[in-house]
Formats: sequence, structure tokens, C-alpha cells
Amino acid sequence: MSEIPGLDGVLGVEHVELTADKVVARFTIGDQHLQPFGIPHGGIYCSVHESTASVAGQIWLGTKGVVVGTNNSTDFLRQAKVGDTITTTATPIHRGRSQQLWHLDSHDQDGRLVAQGQVRLANLDRELPAEAVAQFTGVPVP
Amino acid sequence: MSEIPGLDGVLGVEHVELTADKVVARFTIGDQHLQPFGIPHGGIYCSVHESTASVAGQIWLGTKGVVVGTNNSTDFLRQAKVGDTITTTATPIHRGRSQQLWHLDSHDQDGRLVAQGQVRLANLDRELPAEAVAQFTGVPVP
Amino acid sequence: MSEIPGLDGVLGVEHVELTADKVVARFTIGDQHLQPFGIPHGGIYCSVHESTASVAGQIWLGTKGVVVGTNNSTDFLRQAKVGDTITTTATPIHRGRSQQLWHLDSHDQDGRLVAQGQVRLANLDRELPAEAVAQFTGVPVP
Amino acid sequence: MSEIPGLDGVLGVEHVELTADKVVARFTIGDQHLQPFGIPHGGIYCSVHESTASVAGQIWLGTKGVVVGTNNSTDFLRQAKVGDTITTTATPIHRGRSQQLWHLDSHDQDGRLVAQGQVRLANLDRELPAEAVAQFTGVPVP
Repeated sequence: MSEIPGLDGVLGVEHVELTADKVVARFTIGDQHLQPFGIPHGGIYCSVHESTASVAGQIWLGTKGVVVGTNNSTDFLRQAKVGDTITTTATPIHRGRSQQLWHLDSHDQDGRLVAQGQVRLANLDRELPAEAVAQFTGVPVP
Repeated sequence: MSEIPGLDGVLGVEHVELTADKVVARFTIGDQHLQPFGIPHGGIYCSVHESTASVAGQIWLGTKGVVVGTNNSTDFLRQAKVGDTITTTATPIHRGRSQQLWHLDSHDQDGRLVAQGQVRLANLDRELPAEAVAQFTGVPVP
Repeated sequence: MSEIPGLDGVLGVEHVELTADKVVARFTIGDQHLQPFGIPHGGIYCSVHESTASVAGQIWLGTKGVVVGTNNSTDFLRQAKVGDTITTTATPIHRGRSQQLWHLDSHDQDGRLVAQGQVRLANLDRELPAEAVAQFTGVPVP
Repeated sequence: MSEIPGLDGVLGVEHVELTADKVVARFTIGDQHLQPFGIPHGGIYCSVHESTASVAGQIWLGTKGVVVGTNNSTDFLRQAKVGDTITTTATPIHRGRSQQLWHLDSHDQDGRLVAQGQVRLANLDRELPAEAVAQFTGVPVP
């Protein structure tokens, strides 16, 4: 089991690119991602979309507030299989004072779109220490 | 770790009521459900909604086809905490020949609505053995 | 053409019940609601859902702020026809300090669910004169 | 009032680019698009998104079936005003045997994103005469 705590650790999600304008996560489909028919459980894509968008939104917001998810809408487009490596990319649709909207794309190792969707975040008006931001996002806040 | 295989086992989700018109699932929030700030990861609710709706849709469809999720839209309404028991209920909005739409509500042990949403399923035109339906849904097909 | 200004007038939408917990609107499908195949244009249901939820949210918020729509997700479940009378009901899912989420159901005259969905509103922090609220909602603010 | 019948005519929507991979529509915001506060009614964007995606999906499908909308999810990102010209572009996310998913972007004359969303279509298995496709889409089917 991963050193990463919480759900991302359980799912084996790693963030491989971390900027304010784009965050990329990656994971490999294993037995813990399946539903009873032995195919990937849709909740996997929702979960990775949620954390990738949240990290992206928090990097952008920095210490000025705390992001929390308010809606996650994910479309399942193609069935992946155990062993496939999924790359999830978050890009901004809208970043406002009180809300953010991020687009998410999940492709397999052959570049096929497996899932896509969007995550809506609320920016809570609560100052956050730079260390907390760094811990959440994996990016040191300068 | 649970005897239940796959993601539902990892997340500790149990289905406590299983009928063609209503499926109820339950889980208790633990460390494996958190995001890095130590609060429940939104993907948890998406995942439970996805499996609860899928089981419900498959019970309704029986051996006449295979349900697959096409969209999951989940709203996060209230922050729960470790130790809270979440009860998720799937009820049908629409059950047609080729698609189903299920409504999902997740309440905490005090009856407060924590998350809600809907899952859209496609009914794939592929006959399914009764044992496979029973294994997926936990309900013997007569 | 209706006395009601703007899109609601063009579409012939009337609000027939107006309370803080439930708003009901009604319209009859005519030629102006069709798409080129001669069936109702889905945008009609989106539009009625949008205004019904907005009026409901503004009644609830009163003079304390201004509601604006941020997302409208509408599902089209059954095809209606010219002459059908559609009744749209808005009920609250969540009403918070900064956001509201309303559920919408549209039934035909025989009680069949034709469309359903939800509208998300932001509560803008801008005081509104009681007369403006009354003009928007059709309900005098006491 | 426009020569275009139905809702698109009422709203003054014109399709200015029509291909199987991209459809572009345009309209200018007028009094008939407003809600009671005098700002554009969100249902306008939903409606234009709906017809733009439907035309695009029907061009792609041709005579092999009939598209009908099953879901429209639209996000309102920026407030436009009377006189603004809105350009709506539909591009495909997914085009499968039984369903299509289209992305929609609506920009104002200064290139600012005003609304965005997606429309899900079902491909009904019903042969359509080439003339009906041409009439619906505005594109002669070869």
C-alpha cells in the first residue's frame, strides 16, 4: 500500500505534474479499482478527477482560501482493463473569486479518452498557512 | 479488509436493502476515505452512488442485459467526519429500454443530507446468466 | 404575445404557486417551443427550470442578496406534443449562505414525468430593494 | 421575427458553420432573451447549446438514425448584455453507436467565455429520409 495517506493512497494515484494551470495525475488499474463484474468501477475516475481538480484549484488559490468540491460530473466513455495506465489532466474552465470550474480528461496509455468530466470547487474564505497548502498540493508555496 | 472484492470492499460499502425499486448501501467513514486535509474525499460519495445505482439498475434489468454507467453527477452538500455512518439510497427517476437514470441521496446517522446526485446507466443488449446477475447484485434471480 | 417581458413571456410561462419552499410554473406547448422535427425543443425545459428555480431561490433569499444561475442540468425523459400542458415544480435540495441547489420536475397533464433536473444558484452579496424582489418573484416582500 | 420556425426562430439563432465535426451558431442578445432583472436568461444558452449539438449530432449520424437530447448541462460563467453577439461552438467528446456527447462553448464578440456545457444525445434506431436530415441540419446529405 502506498505511502500517500487517504483515498489517493488506497487508489494509488500519483500527481506527476503540478502547476496552477494544469495538474496531471496517473494510476494503474488494479484489482482494488474493479466492480463485481471485474471491470473498472466508475467511482475510480470520479475520485481521481476530484483530487486532481482539488489540487489544481488549491495551487491556483494558494494561501488565500480553501477549496472544497461542490459538484463532480464524470462521463464514462470507454472501458479500460487491469494493467492499463490512466493519465488524468485538469485544466481550468473558470477561476473566479468564489468558485472554480475545472475540466478533467482521463486517457489510457494509448491516448484513448476513457473518461471526462468537470469538478466545481467553492473557494472558502479562510486563510491557509503556506505549509498546509504545500502539504495538500505537493507544491511549495513561495 | 473486507471480504467484498474490488472497490466496494476497499471502501467498506455494504448493501443493506436490495429491491428493484430501491437499493440502500451503508459505510462508515474511516481514514481510507479522506483527502489530504483530513476530511472525506468527494470521490467516496461518487463511488458509493455509482455502485448503489448500478446494483439497483441491474436488479431491475435482471438477465435481459448488462448495465454500465455512462454519467455520474454528485453534489457535495455537507462535510462529514471520521466515524460518521453514511446511508446511501438509490431510487429510480427513469427506467427505459436503453437507459436508466437513478437518484442518489446520502445521509449521515443524524439524517442530514451529506451528498446527492444521479447516475445514468446504459442497458447493454447482452444476455446475462442468472448466476452472474445474482453475483453482481447479491440478489438471487428467480 | 404575453404581457410578461423577456424569455418567460416569449415562452408563455406563468408561475402559479410562489412560496419560499416551492414554486410551480405552467405553460402549454405551442409552435414556438418546437425544434425543426416538430417536437418540443429541449431548451424549453431548461429555460422553465432555470426561471422557476431562480424565482424560488430569490423568494427564499429575499432582500439579502441576488441569485444568479451557475449551472443548469436538465434530463429529457419523455416526448411531449403541441397542446400538452407542462407543470414545473421547484423544490430545494440545499440552501446555503453562498449557494442554493434546486430540484426541478416537469410533468404533463397526465402526471407523466417529461423532464427533470437541477439548477445551482449563487447568492451574490448585494442588497436588493424589496420592490426589486417583488418585481422579480411576483411575491410582495413583507 | 425570423423565417426560422420554432424556438430557434424565436431566439434568432443562426447556424453559421455546419460540418460533422463542428457546428457554429450565432445570435445577438435582445429583449426576448432577458429574465426579469434585465440580464440574459440562462435558458438561452441551454437552448442554443441544445440545438447546436443536435444539429451537429444529426449531421454526423446522417440518415442512419434520429438524434434526441437526453441531458443538457450548461454552466453560466459571465454575464452578457443586450447587443452582445454570442458565438456557440459544438465539438464532439464522444460519438458512439447509441449515444453521442458534445461539448459546447459560448463566447461573446470579445472572445470571452460566457457559458459552456455538454449535451448528451441518444441515436434512435430509425431510418431518416435524406431530405429530413437536410431540413433539420441545413446540410444536404449527399
